[in-house]
Amino acid sequence: MRGKRVIALCGGIGGAKLARGLSELLGPNLTVVVNTGDDFEHLGLTISPDVDTVLYTLADLSDPERGWGRANETWNFMSSLAEVGGETWFQLGDRDLALHIERTRRLRDGQSLTRIVTDIARRFGISARILPMSDDAVRTIVMTDEGPLPFQRYFVGLRCAPAVRAIRFEGANSARVSPEVSASFEQGDVEAIVVCPSNPYLSVDPILAVPGMRQLLRRAGAPIVAVSPIIGGAAIKGPTTKIMAELKIDAANASIVCHYDGIIDGMIVDRIDAADAAALPVATLATATLMRTPEDRVNLARDVLDFARRLTASSEPVPRQRGLG
Amino acid sequence: MRGKRVIALCGGIGGAKLARGLSELLGPNLTVVVNTGDDFEHLGLTISPDVDTVLYTLADLSDPERGWGRANETWNFMSSLAEVGGETWFQLGDRDLALHIERTRRLRDGQSLTRIVTDIARRFGISARILPMSDDAVRTIVMTDEGPLPFQRYFVGLRCAPAVRAIRFEGANSARVSPEVSASFEQGDVEAIVVCPSNPYLSVDPILAVPGMRQLLRRAGAPIVAVSPIIGGAAIKGPTTKIMAELKIDAANASIVCHYDGIIDGMIVDRIDAADAAALPVATLATATLMRTPEDRVNLARDVLDFARRLTASSEPVPRQRGLG
Repeated sequence: MRGKRVIALCGGIGGAKLARGLSELLGPNLTVVVNTGDDFEHLGLTISPDVDTVLYTLADLSDPERGWGRANETWNFMSSLAEVGGETWFQLGDRDLALHIERTRRLRDGQSLTRIVTDIARRFGISARILPMSDDAVRTIVMTDEGPLPFQRYFVGLRCAPAVRAIRFEGANSARVSPEVSASFEQGDVEAIVVCPSNPYLSVDPILAVPGMRQLLRRAGAPIVAVSPIIGGAAIKGPTTKIMAELKIDAANASIVCHYDGIIDGMIVDRIDAADAAALPVATLATATLMRTPEDRVNLARDVLDFARRLTASSEPVPRQRGLG
Repeated sequence: MRGKRVIALCGGIGGAKLARGLSELLGPNLTVVVNTGDDFEHLGLTISPDVDTVLYTLADLSDPERGWGRANETWNFMSSLAEVGGETWFQLGDRDLALHIERTRRLRDGQSLTRIVTDIARRFGISARILPMSDDAVRTIVMTDEGPLPFQRYFVGLRCAPAVRAIRFEGANSARVSPEVSASFEQGDVEAIVVCPSNPYLSVDPILAVPGMRQLLRRAGAPIVAVSPIIGGAAIKGPTTKIMAELKIDAANASIVCHYDGIIDGMIVDRIDAADAAALPVATLATATLMRTPEDRVNLARDVLDFARRLTASSEPVPRQRGLG
C-alpha cells in the first residue's frame, strides 16, 4: 500500500454525497478538492455553492430533500428582501446566509478562501480536509444560444433552459492551485484519487482547468478513479445529459471515459450499465452508484476505495496508457 | 395658517412613536428628518438603526415589545452566525437583515441613502416622507471613561455602561444637509417643526450638528416645538438620564429647554411635570407624553400640532427671544 490518504475532486450535490461516504470511512485521511467555478457575487456577498454543499453535507447540516442549503431552513430573509425590492432569483435561507456573510467579511479582511473554509469545517466538526481548488477567482461561463451566461444565472436563474454551445472558465489561465492543494497532492502518501460523480463539464472541468492541477494528479502516484454521473443513459439530478446532448456528446459512460481520457485509470459505472463496462477502454467496476440513503453513500465509497486498491495491487506502478499533461 | 407641512426631527424608538402619531394625522404632509449618527458598518453591511426604526414604525412592521427591529422576527441567521464564528453582539433578525443587505447593495451601486430610504418607504406603503439628515457619513462617538467608543459599541455592545464624558460627531463638519432635506425646509409651506422626544445628546444633536441645519430650522418660518424625553425626572427608555448625570446635567425639563436654547419656541412636558412648566423660559404645554398605545401616539401628536398652531396664532411672526445661529 502506497499511502493512506485519499483525495476526491468534487462539485456540488452528487459529488458531495460520495465525499460524505468517503469521509465516514476515512475521516482526516480524506481531502476534498472542491470546484469554485460556480462561485459568484450576489447581493454584495461572495457565494461558493459547491464548497458550501460539501461543508453542509459533511457536517450533516444539509437539507436531504433539496440537496443544497441547510436542513430546518427558514426563508424570512428572502420574503423580506422581496418586500424591499431586492433580487430574489437565488434563494438564500436565513441559516445559510450566515456562512455567506461571514465568508465575505473574512475575504474582505484579507483571509484566503482556503483558510476560511478550513476554519468553518473545523467549527462544523468535519474531520476531512475541504479545500477550494484555488484561492483565485475562476468563473464558469456557459456559452449558450442566448449568449454567455455566468454559471448561476444559467443554472439557477434560467434553470439550465438555454442550449449550451461551450463552457469557459474565466480566470482559469491565471489562477493558481492553492498551496494547500499542492501540498495535499505532494505529500507522497496519497492512496487514491477519486473523481466524484459530479458534472464533468460544469463541476470537474473547472478543477482540471486550474494550471498545474493535471500535473499534480499525475505526480501523486496514486490510481485515479472516476464514478460516472450517468446511470442508464441519464443523470440522477442536474443538467448533465441535457448538456451532453447540446454539446453533441452521447449520454453514455463511454463519453465520460473519453472526457477523462488521460486522467483516470479506472471508472465505476452503475450495475445496470455492467454490460457496457467491458467495452470501456479503462479498468471498470460495475456497482450500485445511486446514493439515496446514508448507507448507499458509504457502500459506494467502500467500493471506490476497494477498486482503487485493486488497481494499485494489480499494477505497481500504475500503468498509464495515455499521457496526462 | 402659514403652511400645511410638518417636519419632525427624530432619533430612534421614542421619537419614532411620535413620528408615527404625526404620520397618522398628516400623511404625506409629514417629513421626518432622521438621525444617521448611529449608522455603522457591521459584518460588511451599512446599518442605519434610527432610519430603520422609523421605517418599521411608520410601516407598522416594528416589534411592539422590543421597540426596534421587526415583528414576527426569527433569529436563525444569528444562531448560524455564531456557529461559523461571526460577531453576534449586534442582533440582526432574519427579516431585518434584508433591509441591510439591500441598502448596502444599493449604496455600493452609487445610490444615495436618501434615494434608497425614499424607495423603501414607498414599498412599505408609508405616505410620510422619511429623510436621513445627510447622505454623508456622520458618526456619533461617545467619549467615555473607557475611551472613545463608536455609538453602537457603546449603546448595544456595552449597554451604555461606560460613563460618558463627551459626545463627538465625526464627519459632521464636512457633512452636507441633503438636497431633499434642504428643499423640505425651504418650500415655504412648513406649518411646524417638531423635535421628537428622542435623546437630545445622542439622537437630536447629530442632526443639529450638520452644517446648515440650524439655519434651515430658523428660516423655515414655523414654530419649533420639542417634546421632552423626560417624565418626572426619568427617561422612559434608554440612557438619557444616565448620560445627563454623567455630563453633570440635571435630569429636568429645564435642562432640556436649556439644551435647545435658541432653537425651540415651545416645549411639551408631561402632565406630571406641569408644576415645573410655568418656570420654563419658553412657551409650554403639559400633557400626557407617555406613549404606550397607538392612541397615545396620536393624542400626543394632536397636542403637539395644536400647541404649535397656538404658538403661530398668538405671535405672527413667531417671536425669537434668543438667536438661533
